[in-house]
Amino acid sequence: MTPAPASEYTVYRGVEGVVKKSSAQLPPLGPKDILLKITHSGVCGTDLGYMPFGIALGHEGVGIVQAVGSDVTQFKVGDRAGGGYHRNSCGHCSYCLFGQDIWCYERSVFGEKDYHNGTFGEYYIGVETYLHKIPDGLASEHAAPLQCAGATTYNAISSVAKPGDRVGIIGIGGLGHLAIQFAQKLGAQVVVFSTSSSKEEEARKLGASEFYLLDEVDKIKKPVNILVVAGNTYPNWKKFLVKNVVARAGTVIPLAAPHGDLALPAFELFFDGYNVRSSLVASRAKHNEMLEFAAFHGVKPWIEEFELSEKGIEDAIGKLRSNKLRYRGVLVAKDA
Amino acid sequence: MTPAPASEYTVYRGVEGVVKKSSAQLPPLGPKDILLKITHSGVCGTDLGYMPFGIALGHEGVGIVQAVGSDVTQFKVGDRAGGGYHRNSCGHCSYCLFGQDIWCYERSVFGEKDYHNGTFGEYYIGVETYLHKIPDGLASEHAAPLQCAGATTYNAISSVAKPGDRVGIIGIGGLGHLAIQFAQKLGAQVVVFSTSSSKEEEARKLGASEFYLLDEVDKIKKPVNILVVAGNTYPNWKKFLVKNVVARAGTVIPLAAPHGDLALPAFELFFDGYNVRSSLVASRAKHNEMLEFAAFHGVKPWIEEFELSEKGIEDAIGKLRSNKLRYRGVLVAKDA
Repeated sequence: MTPAPASEYTVYRGVEGVVKKSSAQLPPLGPKDILLKITHSGVCGTDLGYMPFGIALGHEGVGIVQAVGSDVTQFKVGDRAGGGYHRNSCGHCSYCLFGQDIWCYERSVFGEKDYHNGTFGEYYIGVETYLHKIPDGLASEHAAPLQCAGATTYNAISSVAKPGDRVGIIGIGGLGHLAIQFAQKLGAQVVVFSTSSSKEEEARKLGASEFYLLDEVDKIKKPVNILVVAGNTYPNWKKFLVKNVVARAGTVIPLAAPHGDLALPAFELFFDGYNVRSSLVASRAKHNEMLEFAAFHGVKPWIEEFELSEKGIEDAIGKLRSNKLRYRGVLVAKDA
Repeated sequence: MTPAPASEYTVYRGVEGVVKKSSAQLPPLGPKDILLKITHSGVCGTDLGYMPFGIALGHEGVGIVQAVGSDVTQFKVGDRAGGGYHRNSCGHCSYCLFGQDIWCYERSVFGEKDYHNGTFGEYYIGVETYLHKIPDGLASEHAAPLQCAGATTYNAISSVAKPGDRVGIIGIGGLGHLAIQFAQKLGAQVVVFSTSSSKEEEARKLGASEFYLLDEVDKIKKPVNILVVAGNTYPNWKKFLVKNVVARAGTVIPLAAPHGDLALPAFELFFDGYNVRSSLVASRAKHNEMLEFAAFHGVKPWIEEFELSEKGIEDAIGKLRSNKLRYRGVLVAKDA
């Protein structure tokens, strides 16, 4: 089927530190391409990181399939689909064949290639199997933040946690509030660490059974054995990598990548056996598993909606920057 | 059976930076205790680290069972046994029950408790299941360094490596020369990184199929996916944690614990998915597996023998300190 929409359409780029309405040319669809009319897009800290580079922003999109390439078999016009961070991989390397396609050397992810295609826009062009069906039980406004924040937190926790593990989560924000829900639904005891006691009530609503302020982590009764760093800075490792806070042989999973060093106390790392596990969104199979899991268990991002327009994006980014979003901004297209 | 030997016996302690002949009282054997007459003991960098504290040194012992406590069922007088680093655990916590007893919070390991009992001495008192039978095919002088260096390298590699993995090993010394052998016998492609081209021939004899100097790591044709840091300093991570040297989602295993920080480049860690895995000798099941594996596959430490005496220990330590041992010092009792 040939794409019907106009050949030029709206995208939003970061230009000199602000987001500007811009346009992109609709290319002819390749055989596996899918044209998605965006109805919703999450706003992520990673978008802020790429604002200086002039690229089309947005990587947590959900929309309605408008057109499909000649070889697409899994989607048809009118289907709901989501995606936007992981855009392609080679399909034949060992990462791809083992279902670890997010690590493929030829991968395309938001910010690395494909600079004129973003989910802050009228359309997004995705490749089949890199766009994901949205299960019926999930509203599009909830499905959008799951495309990156959901995949990131679910992948990190579900790849490591065993039933009954104690999972510590530092920071309740766009990532942390989903990490709490996923960890709890995966059968873990969830322990939240936060800077502010004002977050305790919400943390408990989300699924935490324990709550500690960052400056009182030593009050913990029993150590966690998985520690998810869900904020955008690293904690004071000397306070956390103590066997009474994070158990021996425990795993630390940082979900952010500040520039600079991850400086861990070597002695404690060695003698108490801590592991550090990296996690970058999710490979495709895990992404699909996450969407099914979220739909079945009722994992839902807590969102604030903004219009998908220059003004709406500006407002969402402003709130995100000032740490006032509770907990994920979602842009909604006017005609969604 | 009651212990036969004299109640006072020789041990060697670090005293003001040198090793001094000293003595210890033989306690009555507990029900699970085993009295081992030491015939051989490896000399390890960890002994040097504990020299300032006056404790009985040595934790890579092999000897002959002289007496057993009333409840010992797995050893009899005359058996060969080895051990000395991991000395006890509680037996009922989840680490112990899952076979991860080296992480038990109540563990006793060399240097943490049990300060008057070391394998640099006439006797060593071990607890059943924390002493290990030496398979017939293993000479005692080879079995001794396996009790710590062997357990450490085998545990680190065998817990992670899959058939056909490319395992990089930095440093060819007491640990590295065993890591090369174990990795090769476990089915890996072994890539050695060293400061000196004079080590290349030996690295290849030990089982390496590739060899690179530390300042030419970028010459590697295909990245490794496991990187074992077998020296006592960390490498320049910026040179190694590059996707063309250590593959994406690769695992780094530091086998030493310098004081200070393990400072890893956060951005590369995150976007290329590197994991850091800690490894401290081996839990008991893994230790036994290692000994069987070494005996079956002919993994043998390359050793230099010294007399088990003040002079012999001093010589071994001197060579170890000046980085001249090829590759593990073994103390041999006069009457062994």
